[in-house]
Amino acid sequence: MFYFRNKKTNFAAVFTNENRRMKKIYRANILYTKQKDCFEIIEDGYVAVGDDGRVCRVAADRDSLGWPDAEVVDYKDKLLIPAMNDVHVHAAQYHNQGIAMDMELLPWLEHYTFPEEAKFADTDYAERIYSRFISHLRRVGTMRAAVFATVHTEGTRRLMRLFSEAGMGALVGKVAMDRNCPDSLIETVDEAVSGMEQLATEYADPQSLVRPIVTPRFIPSCTPAMLKACGELASRYGLPVQSHLSENLAEVASVHQLEPDALGYGDAYRRYGLFGQTPTVMAHCVWSDAAERRLMKEGDVMVAHCPTSNFNVASGMAPIRTFLDEGIRVGLGSDISGGHDLSIFRTMVYAIQVSKMHYQRNHDMPFLLLSEAFWMATKGGGSFFGRVGSFEEGYDFDALVIDDHDLYPEDYTLEQRLERFIYTGDDRHIVHRFCRGKEV
Amino acid sequence: MFYFRNKKTNFAAVFTNENRRMKKIYRANILYTKQKDCFEIIEDGYVAVGDDGRVCRVAADRDSLGWPDAEVVDYKDKLLIPAMNDVHVHAAQYHNQGIAMDMELLPWLEHYTFPEEAKFADTDYAERIYSRFISHLRRVGTMRAAVFATVHTEGTRRLMRLFSEAGMGALVGKVAMDRNCPDSLIETVDEAVSGMEQLATEYADPQSLVRPIVTPRFIPSCTPAMLKACGELASRYGLPVQSHLSENLAEVASVHQLEPDALGYGDAYRRYGLFGQTPTVMAHCVWSDAAERRLMKEGDVMVAHCPTSNFNVASGMAPIRTFLDEGIRVGLGSDISGGHDLSIFRTMVYAIQVSKMHYQRNHDMPFLLLSEAFWMATKGGGSFFGRVGSFEEGYDFDALVIDDHDLYPEDYTLEQRLERFIYTGDDRHIVHRFCRGKEV
Repeated sequence: MFYFRNKKTNFAAVFTNENRRMKKIYRANILYTKQKDCFEIIEDGYVAVGDDGRVCRVAADRDSLGWPDAEVVDYKDKLLIPAMNDVHVHAAQYHNQGIAMDMELLPWLEHYTFPEEAKFADTDYAERIYSRFISHLRRVGTMRAAVFATVHTEGTRRLMRLFSEAGMGALVGKVAMDRNCPDSLIETVDEAVSGMEQLATEYADPQSLVRPIVTPRFIPSCTPAMLKACGELASRYGLPVQSHLSENLAEVASVHQLEPDALGYGDAYRRYGLFGQTPTVMAHCVWSDAAERRLMKEGDVMVAHCPTSNFNVASGMAPIRTFLDEGIRVGLGSDISGGHDLSIFRTMVYAIQVSKMHYQRNHDMPFLLLSEAFWMATKGGGSFFGRVGSFEEGYDFDALVIDDHDLYPEDYTLEQRLERFIYTGDDRHIVHRFCRGKEV
Repeated sequence: MFYFRNKKTNFAAVFTNENRRMKKIYRANILYTKQKDCFEIIEDGYVAVGDDGRVCRVAADRDSLGWPDAEVVDYKDKLLIPAMNDVHVHAAQYHNQGIAMDMELLPWLEHYTFPEEAKFADTDYAERIYSRFISHLRRVGTMRAAVFATVHTEGTRRLMRLFSEAGMGALVGKVAMDRNCPDSLIETVDEAVSGMEQLATEYADPQSLVRPIVTPRFIPSCTPAMLKACGELASRYGLPVQSHLSENLAEVASVHQLEPDALGYGDAYRRYGLFGQTPTVMAHCVWSDAAERRLMKEGDVMVAHCPTSNFNVASGMAPIRTFLDEGIRVGLGSDISGGHDLSIFRTMVYAIQVSKMHYQRNHDMPFLLLSEAFWMATKGGGSFFGRVGSFEEGYDFDALVIDDHDLYPEDYTLEQRLERFIYTGDDRHIVHRFCRGKEV
């Protein structure tokens, strides 16, 4: 299955069912997606979780689970679903969430984004904003995130510590950039490498919920020397990579100019060792052509689909059906502050809506089903963090308990209740959150 | 100004400043839109409201208002804005909000919409669902709505009574339809007219917050005899009209077949006296061509822009910039249950996003500014209900008090605080609601 990495990485969970002890059993209405096409639904079912925080088994009745002495936590008529995964978000832009939407991209970067990121040289400021960000992320039920911090090593270190303290999973990127940005945000290649190496050394345990990720901002803001250093670092430390790809047409054109020898934007990353040589997630991919998609497929590069951002920044509408048909992995990203909504549930709705606009124009591109959007938000995006996003055996127990009593659950089927929560609910309905078996 | 009706109607407020008594003064940070292009912003300002529930004056200081003895309600650092107006929503589809989004339009109508509407023959059921609907509408800050009920006269009467009891403003339509729908929803023309006349007689006071509106479902579901009867009824009782127009391409093609003599969909309505002969609002207008837009301009027909619905039902993206440029009135509609979100604040965000997708393809169509979306939600849509949607003198005091203390207001300007509330806030932030001067 393409959604579980078999590539050698040092952060994928090594799962073995031997010597595991069942720790807790959760009873509720269970919904998740093994496959994209439909929900697995167990009315009044059970999930058994081991003391390693991973799922032992899901069952429709208590007896078949064994472990008669295990504690049963009964969530009664509530819904139990996998937690959300956000595969593209800028923690350092949290303060700009929901402002400056009247601006075009370039003045927005110049007047809002870069000045805001420059403030993160002040580590107290970083601590304050990052705390707000993580608290909000928790609130909306996102237990794993692939996060851009800023160029500042100390600020990035604080963000990693805050995630660790919260018990939430994150791949955190100290941003690398050394051109086309204000002087205050430029580091030399040596400074950048030194900072990234420090963090890679401090968070070296591949089992840690919080890990570093190599994060060249994007090609227009990194010199070839910086890109080369990033690729070497990813390879040396076995670190994953995140960046932006083919977000808008002007950016794509500029990469063609900056990297004339490359066959395209994706190929330019590939030449620097930043496109699938280690696990890679690329945000947006609105304008990726067939050749670029082929490279993504070959490198198992994940698309971070950020539909709210693509609307707000007027980038365009990513052809997600095409990516899925071609066997390319897709997860969902909030992309704060290009995106305005941190909720991956809302992002699901937008992803479906974008697909319906493609469908309206071309009926050969069927729109996304709810189960497909849910799969992208859970098992699709989750696969970037290990065995995350499902309740199958061996998956980390990342879960949310949904209390939809004020949405008239008695009138609807379980699948409709989930659909109504996704379309009309909010964080008030999320009453428990688990990350790798621990309540957050 | 095109946003205030000068056409003779019996529901437009007759405003005179003589003999009015100032009743209450509200102190807060005041934001509203007189014009589309920018916000009127008064930091720590005052709105004086008369005992008729209408705005007497807005001022930056207390003294200039006079009336030294009037009671001052101090909302301190909160935001005071005009309330929301929803110019297209199906109350009888409230139970289907947020379900069946995986279905195509026709099976959706057949399996969900029509069977649901048929249940409203049971007046107790109608009372139950309509109560939920109005309570939710209130919660999200919508104080006026143009509403579709069902064909059932008694159910529609209940809906009107519930609006009256809530103290909220509504134009409520008993739906007329007599073809292309299940037998259970078909009335004869005589039955339909008789029901509409009853309601028109019962709610004859033009000053009433709740009034009937003539509501042929749309041309494909009304015979020529029914459309003719609707037009005559609107003219006889001086009632406004609402319906659907050019929502999707198949529907437009079917109207051309059904009404071969008409010059188009809008012209077909016009021939029956249903397109501007009395105040008219038409939902969607995604595919209205230049000729249809000209007729709309001539008849001062308002567009009910329903972007969430247009996404969910895969209709397309309405070219709102074009309507505004051509001087056609535009309001916003939630269109539950084609739309999934009753909040007009969220609808604003979607309206801006749709305009950004047009802009992405054609830079000659500038995207909507926040002030323009806000104007559509307040003064634009409000103009369909009288002098509603602004804090200018003589406007009904329809207002919301926004408490954004958990959105870090100290870090932002007033306009940014409003923008953040619109993009990231929800009903928790709405702490007081007024409709024509009375707290709801």
